Amino acid sequence: MYIGIDIGGTNLVAGVTNGKGQIIDKVTRPVNKDWDVDELCRQIGQLALQATEVGGFKPEEVHAVGVGLPGLVDNKTGTVIQTPNMPFDHTPFRKLFQEKWDVPVFLGNDANCAAIGEYWAGAAKGCDPAVVITLGTGIGGGMVVNGKLFTGFANSGMEVGHMCIHPNGIRCNCGNRGCWEQYGSATALIRITQEEMHYNPKSALWEFAEGDLNKVSGRTAFQAARVGDASGRKVLFRYLQGLSIGLISLVNILQPEIICLGGGVSNAEDDLLLDPLRELMAQGSYDRTCPTRLEKASLGNDAGIVGAAMLCHMF
Amino acid sequence: MYIGIDIGGTNLVAGVTNGKGQIIDKVTRPVNKDWDVDELCRQIGQLALQATEVGGFKPEEVHAVGVGLPGLVDNKTGTVIQTPNMPFDHTPFRKLFQEKWDVPVFLGNDANCAAIGEYWAGAAKGCDPAVVITLGTGIGGGMVVNGKLFTGFANSGMEVGHMCIHPNGIRCNCGNRGCWEQYGSATALIRITQEEMHYNPKSALWEFAEGDLNKVSGRTAFQAARVGDASGRKVLFRYLQGLSIGLISLVNILQPEIICLGGGVSNAEDDLLLDPLRELMAQGSYDRTCPTRLEKASLGNDAGIVGAAMLCHMF
Repeated sequence: MYIGIDIGGTNLVAGVTNGKGQIIDKVTRPVNKDWDVDELCRQIGQLALQATEVGGFKPEEVHAVGVGLPGLVDNKTGTVIQTPNMPFDHTPFRKLFQEKWDVPVFLGNDANCAAIGEYWAGAAKGCDPAVVITLGTGIGGGMVVNGKLFTGFANSGMEVGHMCIHPNGIRCNCGNRGCWEQYGSATALIRITQEEMHYNPKSALWEFAEGDLNKVSGRTAFQAARVGDASGRKVLFRYLQGLSIGLISLVNILQPEIICLGGGVSNAEDDLLLDPLRELMAQGSYDRTCPTRLEKASLGNDAGIVGAAMLCHMF
Repeated sequence: MYIGIDIGGTNLVAGVTNGKGQIIDKVTRPVNKDWDVDELCRQIGQLALQATEVGGFKPEEVHAVGVGLPGLVDNKTGTVIQTPNMPFDHTPFRKLFQEKWDVPVFLGNDANCAAIGEYWAGAAKGCDPAVVITLGTGIGGGMVVNGKLFTGFANSGMEVGHMCIHPNGIRCNCGNRGCWEQYGSATALIRITQEEMHYNPKSALWEFAEGDLNKVSGRTAFQAARVGDASGRKVLFRYLQGLSIGLISLVNILQPEIICLGGGVSNAEDDLLLDPLRELMAQGSYDRTCPTRLEKASLGNDAGIVGAAMLCHMF
């Protein structure tokens, strides 16, 4: 029996899972922004114990606790090095946790936990190499190779959103130009949609955004394309081109057995997202047989909990 | 004691190596283009036995024979699927070899063998992940992760030369546009040099190419830059920009402990090649501390033999 904890800026979620990565029960509590790092660690410890109790287990029945969070972690030393919007800063998390509860503790970042979750119990079950790409504010990535988590040398591997696909392209927050996430993330889709709306005041895009550029979401272009709107289709064409360039490069470099797409954008219907992407991938892959399958991630928000719970098997 | 065989279109080379990947002795024979696949396999078997004998060993002292060749191989089934300019075509190589000599036989492609060689006994010794990039006609790549060869799902992983760095760029032989090898290979360097010469009839590039565009090599621009020629420096500036884009993407995706550059171009002096590339990598990596080291591959042509010999440890 394994506890997986998904730490976000807004909520903490802890799940009890069995040896197959299936969630038996889960508990959650909101994050108070005023908590300092000691209080945050204390709350996480309490939540882990609460999940154990709710699941009907005793602490001594827990084999391991895994913790996933956005940011840079070092599982070797048990340290949370850095996270945006949270008070961790080279925090010896494992040590702090084990002072209260002496159980094996593993750390992973959220993109890696998503990959592990899908590999263990989701769309990538048993696939190797398995790559999970999350389309959100940026583009996150995680990979399982030979049944182990791929971390790179210093835990920053799979920053796939920052591969360069346009050397003189759009400026990225990382300081470079033309990073993949400037063309393939949900943020990029929203930007492309807004750009198109500027030029087409009569487009159905405006209706789905309730006449307000600020109400454009990652769904707007899909909704407009669904009703046959030409601008909506144009937006998707541009977006899928950019998204596919990075996917094709990943296929050529990693040749995974599967790439799972996660994040809100991946909920679009197959005929508007996965089908055209699969066609572009087949056309662009160096190995024209392109054995890499492209699928939707299937665990949604639970992937983080499952992946965190299964971290103990992945190093 | 391990035999490594490097199969090229022109020569077969077999080396006897010890358990550390050091070459004890090696033998070679030219390839006769008229050999059919059976004769080629027979010659390879003979050469392996000859290497054993020259090294002063008996066949029963050989733990394994490894074979590296350019093209697509499947070590699981022991098949050479396809090679350019050689008669292999879904050839059951392991079976054919073992009919004459019942020893464990392993197969790898040449780029993978180069990576294994450098990892085992060269510049990447003990580094993990270790990536070796070969700058030649195209760009080849191989990677060792957790001490194992990374092959991808269907043995075509690490086709890094075909990551897209310019979506509307130069047409590649693979059919796509803007593949990295169109900007970073030795062939690309020669093309950029020739382009510059067209515009600068007084450049020192012409002297080093003996006044003949066909005599331009991967060294020409380095020679001209060394004597302070402005055109030579311009060529290198353009080439290193293109080469660095792919290296930076590899750092962001894989975060290897080391990237070793091999192939003729890598013999250029550090101040003209590695030093500026290191600076570009440090500027462009997502993790600004860029822990990935960039080094010259150190085994040269021997990497293929050493890598082939050590294949038995890598799956």
